[in-house]
Amino acid sequence: MDNLNLGRHISGQFNEDLERVINHVMHMGGLVEKQVSDALVAVAEADEDLARKVLSNDFQINSLEVSIDDECTRIIAKRQPAAGDLRLIMAIVKTIADLERIGDEAEKIANVALESFSGDYKALLLSLENLGNRVIEFLRATLDAFTRMDAETAISVHKSDDKVDREYEALMRQLMTYMMEDPRSIPQIMSVIWSARALERIGDRCQNICEYIIYFVKGKDVRHLKAEDMKEL
Amino acid sequence: MDNLNLGRHISGQFNEDLERVINHVMHMGGLVEKQVSDALVAVAEADEDLARKVLSNDFQINSLEVSIDDECTRIIAKRQPAAGDLRLIMAIVKTIADLERIGDEAEKIANVALESFSGDYKALLLSLENLGNRVIEFLRATLDAFTRMDAETAISVHKSDDKVDREYEALMRQLMTYMMEDPRSIPQIMSVIWSARALERIGDRCQNICEYIIYFVKGKDVRHLKAEDMKEL
Repeated sequence: MDNLNLGRHISGQFNEDLERVINHVMHMGGLVEKQVSDALVAVAEADEDLARKVLSNDFQINSLEVSIDDECTRIIAKRQPAAGDLRLIMAIVKTIADLERIGDEAEKIANVALESFSGDYKALLLSLENLGNRVIEFLRATLDAFTRMDAETAISVHKSDDKVDREYEALMRQLMTYMMEDPRSIPQIMSVIWSARALERIGDRCQNICEYIIYFVKGKDVRHLKAEDMKEL
Repeated sequence: MDNLNLGRHISGQFNEDLERVINHVMHMGGLVEKQVSDALVAVAEADEDLARKVLSNDFQINSLEVSIDDECTRIIAKRQPAAGDLRLIMAIVKTIADLERIGDEAEKIANVALESFSGDYKALLLSLENLGNRVIEFLRATLDAFTRMDAETAISVHKSDDKVDREYEALMRQLMTYMMEDPRSIPQIMSVIWSARALERIGDRCQNICEYIIYFVKGKDVRHLKAEDMKEL
């Protein structure tokens, strides 16, 4: 947390508030990462118990979102932070909204593990593996950049979403071909397609979080910037 | 804006700030609604020019998000609002994030209008019409609840997402059947499926906005509440 400059605050109480809320976000991030990776294992191994665990754990993430949000509002009301401190809190409020939705995507993936895939189509589930690994890696790097509030890492992680998108597009082409060759497989392949889409959206949400980190550190809102302009940072 | 109680603020300047930012959100909401309805007309009438207009207008929504966000942060820093006022500003920050993403969904729909649908499949595009009308209605009701900061309306609008979901599921079943009957149609039907999905997501985002309105008016975070608990409100 070197970029947080926690030392510079006159009020020790404010430091404690900030540190506590950041720890809660990190805890939430860890849970979300676990949900995504458990959902992917549940799909790959057709593990229904694990899938049910993912579904029943989602409430923890939801209630963390609500409580952290509340914590942030209370910090603003009590400490009246300005400039960088306020930017940090706004970045946290947005980050947890995206984390919560990554949790929802994990839920969607876990639901696919509960569907009964007959023998022939089980191999399909494995096709999600590459994309899934790529997305988990991306999510980890994003959470790491958040923990250290490191804009340089955030910028380079942000760019790597291209790789997720390329992997996603390759998988989609493959799945469309399968469907055309064997129309009976369509309902099952559509389930795989929804999972792939969920993974791709997790990538987008990681990109959002990277943008909030950059906004906090650089004081510059980089959402909707073109790739070249991002490069200039 | 009767629920905003703008009269009760001692600082006239603060009232002006609030009124200005709310007007900007309403302007943004109007633009977003126009983008969605234009995208749907572009699809139904295979109107490429209109689709291109939707794509080129998206930047306006993006820059409104960034500028309103900035405005909110400045109001917090300058006026140090507490309680209801702070809740209102937090609700606005979240609302514009959802509005911006509704704009992105409109873009996805407009892209479908640019694909060349050969004669047989044109009818498919019309299948989006019912769902599209339902979603536009939903979005309008949401923006109306926002304008009046009316929690009762927000609660009843929130519930009506069920209708969008039912319409969406009926359409998806129909599209899956088409694909299975005529596998050559798969690529084109997939485009329609992505549009249907975009519409369904717009419904979800309207629900989010309703939740922020309820949070502001009732001071209660109703995200992740079960339907029965929502009813109790």
